[in-house]
Amino acid sequence: MKTLPKPLTVSDIAALVGGEAMGALDHAVTGVANLADARPTDAAFLENQKYAALAAAAPAGCLFLGPERRDMPCAAKGRVIVQEPRAAFAALVRLIDAHDRTKILPARSARASIHDRAVLGPNVAIGDFAVVESGAEIGENTVVMPQAYIGANAKIGRDCLIYPQVVIREDCVVGDGVIIHPGAVIGADGFGFLTDKKTGRHAKIPQIGNVIIEDGVEIGANSTIDRGAVGSTVVRRGTQIDNLVQIAHNVQIGRDCVIVSQTGIAGSSIVGDNVILAGQAGIAGHLTIGSGAIITAQTGVMSDVPPKSVLFGSPGRPHREAFKLQALIGRLPELFEKIKKLERPTI
Amino acid sequence: MKTLPKPLTVSDIAALVGGEAMGALDHAVTGVANLADARPTDAAFLENQKYAALAAAAPAGCLFLGPERRDMPCAAKGRVIVQEPRAAFAALVRLIDAHDRTKILPARSARASIHDRAVLGPNVAIGDFAVVESGAEIGENTVVMPQAYIGANAKIGRDCLIYPQVVIREDCVVGDGVIIHPGAVIGADGFGFLTDKKTGRHAKIPQIGNVIIEDGVEIGANSTIDRGAVGSTVVRRGTQIDNLVQIAHNVQIGRDCVIVSQTGIAGSSIVGDNVILAGQAGIAGHLTIGSGAIITAQTGVMSDVPPKSVLFGSPGRPHREAFKLQALIGRLPELFEKIKKLERPTI
Amino acid sequence: MKTLPKPLTVSDIAALVGGEAMGALDHAVTGVANLADARPTDAAFLENQKYAALAAAAPAGCLFLGPERRDMPCAAKGRVIVQEPRAAFAALVRLIDAHDRTKILPARSARASIHDRAVLGPNVAIGDFAVVESGAEIGENTVVMPQAYIGANAKIGRDCLIYPQVVIREDCVVGDGVIIHPGAVIGADGFGFLTDKKTGRHAKIPQIGNVIIEDGVEIGANSTIDRGAVGSTVVRRGTQIDNLVQIAHNVQIGRDCVIVSQTGIAGSSIVGDNVILAGQAGIAGHLTIGSGAIITAQTGVMSDVPPKSVLFGSPGRPHREAFKLQALIGRLPELFEKIKKLERPTI
Repeated sequence: MKTLPKPLTVSDIAALVGGEAMGALDHAVTGVANLADARPTDAAFLENQKYAALAAAAPAGCLFLGPERRDMPCAAKGRVIVQEPRAAFAALVRLIDAHDRTKILPARSARASIHDRAVLGPNVAIGDFAVVESGAEIGENTVVMPQAYIGANAKIGRDCLIYPQVVIREDCVVGDGVIIHPGAVIGADGFGFLTDKKTGRHAKIPQIGNVIIEDGVEIGANSTIDRGAVGSTVVRRGTQIDNLVQIAHNVQIGRDCVIVSQTGIAGSSIVGDNVILAGQAGIAGHLTIGSGAIITAQTGVMSDVPPKSVLFGSPGRPHREAFKLQALIGRLPELFEKIKKLERPTI
Repeated sequence: MKTLPKPLTVSDIAALVGGEAMGALDHAVTGVANLADARPTDAAFLENQKYAALAAAAPAGCLFLGPERRDMPCAAKGRVIVQEPRAAFAALVRLIDAHDRTKILPARSARASIHDRAVLGPNVAIGDFAVVESGAEIGENTVVMPQAYIGANAKIGRDCLIYPQVVIREDCVVGDGVIIHPGAVIGADGFGFLTDKKTGRHAKIPQIGNVIIEDGVEIGANSTIDRGAVGSTVVRRGTQIDNLVQIAHNVQIGRDCVIVSQTGIAGSSIVGDNVILAGQAGIAGHLTIGSGAIITAQTGVMSDVPPKSVLFGSPGRPHREAFKLQALIGRLPELFEKIKKLERPTI
Repeated sequence: MKTLPKPLTVSDIAALVGGEAMGALDHAVTGVANLADARPTDAAFLENQKYAALAAAAPAGCLFLGPERRDMPCAAKGRVIVQEPRAAFAALVRLIDAHDRTKILPARSARASIHDRAVLGPNVAIGDFAVVESGAEIGENTVVMPQAYIGANAKIGRDCLIYPQVVIREDCVVGDGVIIHPGAVIGADGFGFLTDKKTGRHAKIPQIGNVIIEDGVEIGANSTIDRGAVGSTVVRRGTQIDNLVQIAHNVQIGRDCVIVSQTGIAGSSIVGDNVILAGQAGIAGHLTIGSGAIITAQTGVMSDVPPKSVLFGSPGRPHREAFKLQALIGRLPELFEKIKKLERPTI
């Protein structure tokens, strides 16, 4: 498995993450692991109470713990007390990743198809069988992995990572530091047509807009973000999008949102900043979801959502109400019994 | 942004779409825009009442309005009154698209892999790194974009547009004028196996059927349409399929249906003509959905659906009933209170 | 259509599948068909009662029937009585498939990109424009179809079939006899980041784990299985995964499970053996689903599930309870009426 650039003692680690070292301060670890797999050469962390027993028994080399658990019994050689154990653990993961990551594409492949009129910045890597069409621009240090497709006049910023078999269609704009995972499709036609009322037949409306992805966005594998019918579909700075998410034409998504797998957002809806859309959520078209709202998993949203509200259910309701109603639904058999009794004639 | 082949005055536009021009008849526009982005050089339209205030304030050059709004106050230079504002707007979009669209693939790439036994009609374009296997036939004027895969003995009609990274597996049949968006997979194996009752192990049943897509169908990005186990999975003329839709083996879908994103249809179900399946709907296997039915978003269908019915909920019920039940569910707290009162002994 | 290697009489077929021949024993069939399409040259089967009338009328050459239907009237020339008609039919399908399947890739394409440090076993086929990165290992007889991507140091077993445009990222491990359908993405980054509580901004946590797919697994088109954040995401022997399924980082799925289309499993959840997850089901993170459990379609699971339980609904409840509650919900209008009556003062 992947290892740290050099072994670190429990003390080293505490210094690195700004925590307090306890136990075998000079014990050295060479890697990281989940609690269930941790060996004495690994650092691990506990944050979710669900795994407390696992953490106590784990023969790890170094265990990151929150201050509230500093004295919990545990089998680890040493421990490091920090406010955010997961963040401290992530710091080690970053060291490993920077050291150990396969250098994937140091150069421009002769087996890519790069149009004469494409403009590539310094140090751009283009993998085998990738296609970069006429007028496309790709910024410094960006890596386009094998078999990706960059359409005509698309603009990709610097320091991006475009994984294999991503499609970015013509005229789309991608900011800096964007990561797009394999199979994602940016800028496919929106789902737009006119239906003849008499015949029921549909006539396509050409989709002449584009997609704008701002800096620092990450887009999951096989997700689809359609181009605007006219104008742009927009995903703003820092938003994180998981796999198999659908974002329809002319949707606008704010900054720093989290959109979990298999969620769908229908056309022209506007999502504020820091919104969380949990897995398999669905947002109907032409709605506004206020900043800071949380739409829980599988929830269906059919009307505007005020900022910071939390919705649950299909159709979605405020989550406290929805949970209460679910509890009452569970008591329906009892209710029907009561009614039966009440209806019985008193003798 | 994209522009009209030549500027058009408000009068020109009215003549083009068969509407009535009002206001600054000689004012010229060069493009189209959404209401929120419209400038004096743009045409825009109002159809959804939700955007009436936006339309009133939009400094557009030409605003399409329905007859019921002919006299509404608005900031646009001119207006054109038509029965269907969106359709009129789409007519301008088509002009722009026809004029401005990047000519994507005028010829056959030397970097495609086209089997000697593939048969290509006149004026067929095949993009870089596309693969056309033995026995495949591709009709006149069809464009196969880069990195697409056309399997052995597949038959593609004329005037089709096959986007990058589409997979059409062997023996599948695609009609004329079909558009298939990036990442869609046509003809993957259906999900078929035999399960040993004693061991619980599964043995694959080879899927030896195919997929038949009729004329004028559009299939969204990353959607999947599985081949028949035996026989065909069929999508009939004019049906529109959005992104990330799943259509299982031996499903039959009628004409002119609309299947919205993330919907799934399980094996052997039969969908009539002009059916609407809204986003994230699910149809169980071996069912019949009658023509003209509407299955609303996130609805789960577990039994046959009569023609023209409208279903809502999971499990799906007739929508009027379902909406009423949702309202009553919202009143459950009140109901429980009432029961409590009724149970109280009358003194 | 596809045909048997040679015609088989009803008697031949009975001998092949260990059944009892009845009717025109010497009648020969050359292929297979569904009941709706069956001609006198085809074998067909009846198992689902729903299709009994269709079976009675089908002019098939040979009809497989269960013993309980041995004497039903039917239009088929001959019949073969077997315990499992579908399994008997599948035996013929296998003969056809083995005989008739297009030999897809007999050799290693000169147009693939195979790294010098990749290790290919005997008789490995690599299609056009496929990429095999440094350190990748591919076992005997495995077929990598055109345009697939095998990442650095990935290990693929023997007798696998990797369809076009599959992505298997670096370090992932695939067992023997695995089938991966087009567009599936194995080993994309898990959805992991740290959120700054003050700014709401997200910082990516590198995902340094991998995916392990055991022997005999099948993975559907455009499905996504993310690599572990640290450690592995695991799919154990024999599990069958349909299209558009999402499996998040560090999920562990047991043996011989069936995971139907559009299901999503959130991070670190553990699924036992022989679990069925029906279409569009959702499993929240860090849960345990006991062996033999059945999660019905569109069900949302938010807490641990005991072995062999059956859940329905969102949120999921034991299915008997859930069905009863659904029935009572349907009676809510009646309930509200009753309460109204009870509240009426008795005169």
